[in-house]
Amino acid sequence: MTLHTGRHFLQIPGPTNVPDRVLRAMDMPTLDHRGPEFAELGHAVLAGCQRVFRTKQPVIIYPSSGTGAWEAAIVNTLSPGDKVLMAETGQFAVLWRGIAEKFKLDVEFLSTDWRHGADVEQIEAKLAADREHKIKAVCVVHNETSTSCVTHPFEVRKALNRINHPALLMVDTISGLASLEYEHDAWGIDVSIAGSQKGMMLPPGLGFNALSEKALAASKANTSMRSYWDWHDMIAINKQGTFPYTPATNLLFALKAAIAMLEEEGLDNVFARHMRHGAATRAAVKAWGLDTVCLDPHAYSPALTAVMVPDGHDADAFRKAVLENFDMSLGTGLGKLKGKAFRIGHMGHFNDLMLMGTLSGVEMGLDLAKIPHRSGGVLAAMEVLKGRDVVAMSKSKAAVA
Amino acid sequence: MTLHTGRHFLQIPGPTNVPDRVLRAMDMPTLDHRGPEFAELGHAVLAGCQRVFRTKQPVIIYPSSGTGAWEAAIVNTLSPGDKVLMAETGQFAVLWRGIAEKFKLDVEFLSTDWRHGADVEQIEAKLAADREHKIKAVCVVHNETSTSCVTHPFEVRKALNRINHPALLMVDTISGLASLEYEHDAWGIDVSIAGSQKGMMLPPGLGFNALSEKALAASKANTSMRSYWDWHDMIAINKQGTFPYTPATNLLFALKAAIAMLEEEGLDNVFARHMRHGAATRAAVKAWGLDTVCLDPHAYSPALTAVMVPDGHDADAFRKAVLENFDMSLGTGLGKLKGKAFRIGHMGHFNDLMLMGTLSGVEMGLDLAKIPHRSGGVLAAMEVLKGRDVVAMSKSKAAVA
Amino acid sequence: MTLHTGRHFLQIPGPTNVPDRVLRAMDMPTLDHRGPEFAELGHAVLAGCQRVFRTKQPVIIYPSSGTGAWEAAIVNTLSPGDKVLMAETGQFAVLWRGIAEKFKLDVEFLSTDWRHGADVEQIEAKLAADREHKIKAVCVVHNETSTSCVTHPFEVRKALNRINHPALLMVDTISGLASLEYEHDAWGIDVSIAGSQKGMMLPPGLGFNALSEKALAASKANTSMRSYWDWHDMIAINKQGTFPYTPATNLLFALKAAIAMLEEEGLDNVFARHMRHGAATRAAVKAWGLDTVCLDPHAYSPALTAVMVPDGHDADAFRKAVLENFDMSLGTGLGKLKGKAFRIGHMGHFNDLMLMGTLSGVEMGLDLAKIPHRSGGVLAAMEVLKGRDVVAMSKSKAAVA
Amino acid sequence: MTLHTGRHFLQIPGPTNVPDRVLRAMDMPTLDHRGPEFAELGHAVLAGCQRVFRTKQPVIIYPSSGTGAWEAAIVNTLSPGDKVLMAETGQFAVLWRGIAEKFKLDVEFLSTDWRHGADVEQIEAKLAADREHKIKAVCVVHNETSTSCVTHPFEVRKALNRINHPALLMVDTISGLASLEYEHDAWGIDVSIAGSQKGMMLPPGLGFNALSEKALAASKANTSMRSYWDWHDMIAINKQGTFPYTPATNLLFALKAAIAMLEEEGLDNVFARHMRHGAATRAAVKAWGLDTVCLDPHAYSPALTAVMVPDGHDADAFRKAVLENFDMSLGTGLGKLKGKAFRIGHMGHFNDLMLMGTLSGVEMGLDLAKIPHRSGGVLAAMEVLKGRDVVAMSKSKAAVA
Repeated sequence: MTLHTGRHFLQIPGPTNVPDRVLRAMDMPTLDHRGPEFAELGHAVLAGCQRVFRTKQPVIIYPSSGTGAWEAAIVNTLSPGDKVLMAETGQFAVLWRGIAEKFKLDVEFLSTDWRHGADVEQIEAKLAADREHKIKAVCVVHNETSTSCVTHPFEVRKALNRINHPALLMVDTISGLASLEYEHDAWGIDVSIAGSQKGMMLPPGLGFNALSEKALAASKANTSMRSYWDWHDMIAINKQGTFPYTPATNLLFALKAAIAMLEEEGLDNVFARHMRHGAATRAAVKAWGLDTVCLDPHAYSPALTAVMVPDGHDADAFRKAVLENFDMSLGTGLGKLKGKAFRIGHMGHFNDLMLMGTLSGVEMGLDLAKIPHRSGGVLAAMEVLKGRDVVAMSKSKAAVA
Repeated sequence: MTLHTGRHFLQIPGPTNVPDRVLRAMDMPTLDHRGPEFAELGHAVLAGCQRVFRTKQPVIIYPSSGTGAWEAAIVNTLSPGDKVLMAETGQFAVLWRGIAEKFKLDVEFLSTDWRHGADVEQIEAKLAADREHKIKAVCVVHNETSTSCVTHPFEVRKALNRINHPALLMVDTISGLASLEYEHDAWGIDVSIAGSQKGMMLPPGLGFNALSEKALAASKANTSMRSYWDWHDMIAINKQGTFPYTPATNLLFALKAAIAMLEEEGLDNVFARHMRHGAATRAAVKAWGLDTVCLDPHAYSPALTAVMVPDGHDADAFRKAVLENFDMSLGTGLGKLKGKAFRIGHMGHFNDLMLMGTLSGVEMGLDLAKIPHRSGGVLAAMEVLKGRDVVAMSKSKAAVA
Repeated sequence: MTLHTGRHFLQIPGPTNVPDRVLRAMDMPTLDHRGPEFAELGHAVLAGCQRVFRTKQPVIIYPSSGTGAWEAAIVNTLSPGDKVLMAETGQFAVLWRGIAEKFKLDVEFLSTDWRHGADVEQIEAKLAADREHKIKAVCVVHNETSTSCVTHPFEVRKALNRINHPALLMVDTISGLASLEYEHDAWGIDVSIAGSQKGMMLPPGLGFNALSEKALAASKANTSMRSYWDWHDMIAINKQGTFPYTPATNLLFALKAAIAMLEEEGLDNVFARHMRHGAATRAAVKAWGLDTVCLDPHAYSPALTAVMVPDGHDADAFRKAVLENFDMSLGTGLGKLKGKAFRIGHMGHFNDLMLMGTLSGVEMGLDLAKIPHRSGGVLAAMEVLKGRDVVAMSKSKAAVA
Repeated sequence: MTLHTGRHFLQIPGPTNVPDRVLRAMDMPTLDHRGPEFAELGHAVLAGCQRVFRTKQPVIIYPSSGTGAWEAAIVNTLSPGDKVLMAETGQFAVLWRGIAEKFKLDVEFLSTDWRHGADVEQIEAKLAADREHKIKAVCVVHNETSTSCVTHPFEVRKALNRINHPALLMVDTISGLASLEYEHDAWGIDVSIAGSQKGMMLPPGLGFNALSEKALAASKANTSMRSYWDWHDMIAINKQGTFPYTPATNLLFALKAAIAMLEEEGLDNVFARHMRHGAATRAAVKAWGLDTVCLDPHAYSPALTAVMVPDGHDADAFRKAVLENFDMSLGTGLGKLKGKAFRIGHMGHFNDLMLMGTLSGVEMGLDLAKIPHRSGGVLAAMEVLKGRDVVAMSKSKAAVA
């Protein structure tokens, strides 16, 4: 057993800090998943998920990781050989492409420098060039957790609409949902992919797909082999509040509690809080004289901030110093950012003082790990947190969609 | 919220009653699944699972239901068109076949009357006739949860060995593991399939595969499309105590606690306890003048007992009476036993007085639902529970494998 | 750590089985006991306690055992040398007298055979003879937990009123409150004494006093030394929802949840449930051919049943057999019933099947401990539990006050 | 229900933040407090408390607040009219005197300015003047929670010894125990008084007395009326691991877990951690240009820091701003410091980043409440936290006793 005096700071960009109320809801005796009490729960969480995704269409809840929800999106709607357009916004886009390739899709992967969101103009150009509509789906990562760059899904939808391209729009919002504004229906998303352990404030173990009518039609026509991930059995039996196979009952207890907490705070307030914390964190990074990975203010993530360490320094040695000295977990640099960047999660069940503890730990860790920087990031962050105007500003900036 | 005065009796044959200690272990803050503290946990649960399955080979832990673990066994080792031999021991065999067919396997399904285990002689005959070794796998359900009939996996292994057939032996021990004696290595099982919510005393949300070297070799040669369920990525990264994608961390906390409890009691004591409870339950059924679904004493399940209701009576009306009057959930009749049988779960975290509460509820429910029966089943059960000899006897009988 | 397979049966007559919902409520972070969030909690539990005691007067909540609440009743209202009339209904009456004597009260102790409630006629006679009103208080135990004999407090009040005696009526309802009908105001009780760990379904750690205006006036006039137990500081600051010293915050969280559960079930339903379980237990005792300690049907307790073992047999050897074989705790014989009686608690968070598990454990234990008895008590209990008429009958009988 | 996003910062100087492990230990089913499993627990916590108090003599555990433990110390050893010497170190000394006066002791109250610990020279002078040894006890508060001034109990013991005065030495270490070095036996303390909700990291609900042989002898000779608080019944039955009346079982579960955590960290490490956090907090206060209430470096508390607000400003308006803006509870100014000071708790289950969150909240709150101050306290605190030398220094300074 690791010794903890005081609470661990779990500031990786997911899993996030789970509220006590959610943990305690999970810590109740398991129910008969075929009985009437369960059905009430099932209806409640399915409807609650619709409200969080802002959709009238079905939401699918899998006992799985978010990875499973990626796979589900693919096997339900696409067949081997189908062409898909994906944007290489970072490591999670790379991983998703990996799954697509395992299922023998023909992936066109539009590269970025991993320091911006997807290039929507390039996507539009590719789609426009696809006169025969061979591209069956466009796949983007809403909040690229490896880079803290946001791709605004509604901009992609508008691009598709401008050229009237029938491809499905699939969005990985695993670390976006319930942290960043998200509108499954209003933004014309066909398949949204999410997981429990980020903005939803739950332990890992649930994967989500939100669907559109078009995605459902595509899945009906699709003959790809699938069973566990199949939407249709799920939707059919979900109508009774139950599931085709044993669901992760206790995580559903937790889900119900988490949705209640999100709705008590109000989703708009949740989004504003994340933007505020993103702004404060970036103010600290700037004061330290460091660079965020993300170079485009329009793409700054409210949910996490990835930070470059200067050349010749090892981000993971820094993270180790922070863990050992201050009992805080930060996210590692992933893929080509390995050793070059670290990531500060500020999403989920979080508040100003937890953020200040987090940023203090980063500032002290920079010092202990001898990463060149200026002190005073915490003061800069406090300036943001004290000022309510700043928040309003960053909101109006961020609310571009 | 449903009103409960006192504890609900969750006597479906899974999910089972989760110990408070396991629930409380689950109810701890989520960890960084890439950090050193998690790695200790990962190593501990992977090694613990090996001890429970009694194997030196890898055990795979999925964030999934048991259904997912079925699918995993198939997609890792078999390809469309492969022939498999399955025994229709009951509804779960039927469901597993359904998955096999979705993955386009060529299933030969050996029927039973749903009141016995698999017919091992028939399996042996089929294999013997398969001179070209077209059959790639034999799939049996260890503890058929729809009928409470056990198929002894070691007998199937001996049949395979007698005729030197190279087919893989796949065993669904979802409701067998940690309730009935099970020896993955010693019995020559190639793929064992299990879930968390039965004898393992956990909430649902974890699926397991235990493997043999032969199964691993088969999976390496197998080109079927798969990603989430792929064993190889899992095994490779499990060596560091971590997982290729975010695991269901809090269920792993629970798993560690559950394995500790099983080992504190001693697996042999766990098995003996289940046999004793099976014997007591069958004594009650006999005293009521009712029939167990299972007609073969060699196949009686220690984990649950399925009971026929007399013709002209509705098992589900009876179950409803029990639920409404006594706050106890019993298992419904599945598939062709719908309405004709009910099932009493007595597996997992359970003891004599919980069993007596259960059987009392059944006896009173039979009366309230006007199912013809004799009273006194509870007395017969108490006779078994009081007598330690009876247990020893039933153990020697049951330990045929 | 003791090994438990399945749940322990905690069938002592308190502490009782605490609902998961109550335990989980208690398992939340402690609050600032001077902050606004606490004040909401404080108001809620103080008002809730008034509803449970059925009083408009203040209820005092101490961080203490029930023993502390006994002491509080004495030191607030009585002074050394004051004469009090107490009825020796059993061991708890004896203990209460012991406290009274430590505080130098002049106790007249009216003996019983420990197999009936208090002799109200004798009390009335004593009071009638006290022309000078030297008796300052009459103290009775509502539900004598050592004998399972009820003394009906309203009958004592009527006796006091008939002869117009000004003595305070103090009632220990530690194991009565929230199990048996209780009306602090309507029955004219001056001080009610209770604890958390019985019908209130909480862990031990809270003691209660409910007061009358007359008791409050007496306490104002009383110069006895006291601080911790003093009502006045408590009442004054309780008006703000807070407490004069740090309260047992987490037990107050639990109290709020427990009151909510009692009110969701409805107190009248709670009382009816206890009467039904008392009737079923006594039917079992009768079928076993054993005697209840309580000889007066008018005094039968709905909350627990004390049972005599035949001469020459040791009740504690029997209890040990039950604990070791069936993991059930029963209550020991107290005081002069040591070794001669055991007690079955059936109060608090309880239901029919828990009772049947309990009675089955008693019946099997009688056999293992070779206590002469007839089998079939469990059948007799089931007859009561199945029949709804019986309940109605026993209610009309019991509701004599 | 109050809305919390993220965790509340409970930085009052008690109740403190309770570790999840302790809460979860408390959240287990209540036991039979007369059974063998309980006895193991009883022995374990009684022995554990002895190790924490560093005594071989009995420790008494009451279901009570710390206030109750004050009263217990008095009623066991002293009688009405007895003379006691108390030092008015702050509000808690005043409250304790209030209890002493309710029990009609003759209190000589040595005043301080509330900005220093007790004046040990003055105490020694008073004792020296007491040639007839009328003073029966000297009572000091170890860690005066209203002022954050420490009185070193060993210095008082040395004063008593120098003049060979037989008075009992009673020490309130309610907020000292398990935060500051404490040696009941080695320092010659006769009665130590403590509570659960401070350095012990438990919810409120347990009070403690640790005793000396001399205190026990005094209590045997003392004829004061007492029952609940009586040490002798307690000590006699504690020998079997049980208690004379129903203990607060679930808080004892929690106590066992808390002692385990303290011992895993090591009490010396616990003390060093508190000193480090005290030093960091005072560095922040100094940087803000504010004054600590405590003016004597020898008396600085490692457990909390009371801070003066400049004249003309309201400490409670500041606290309200902090609570409403940052969801942090700070301690109010007590008694004559009402409105003039606030208190920052940094005791119990705590770490560097929780402290930085806390100090950031104070710094931002000072700004929002327009309390004149310089910014940068958080930077000064980080300087202390980063430097391990500073800690060693402050330890050598503080370890004067």
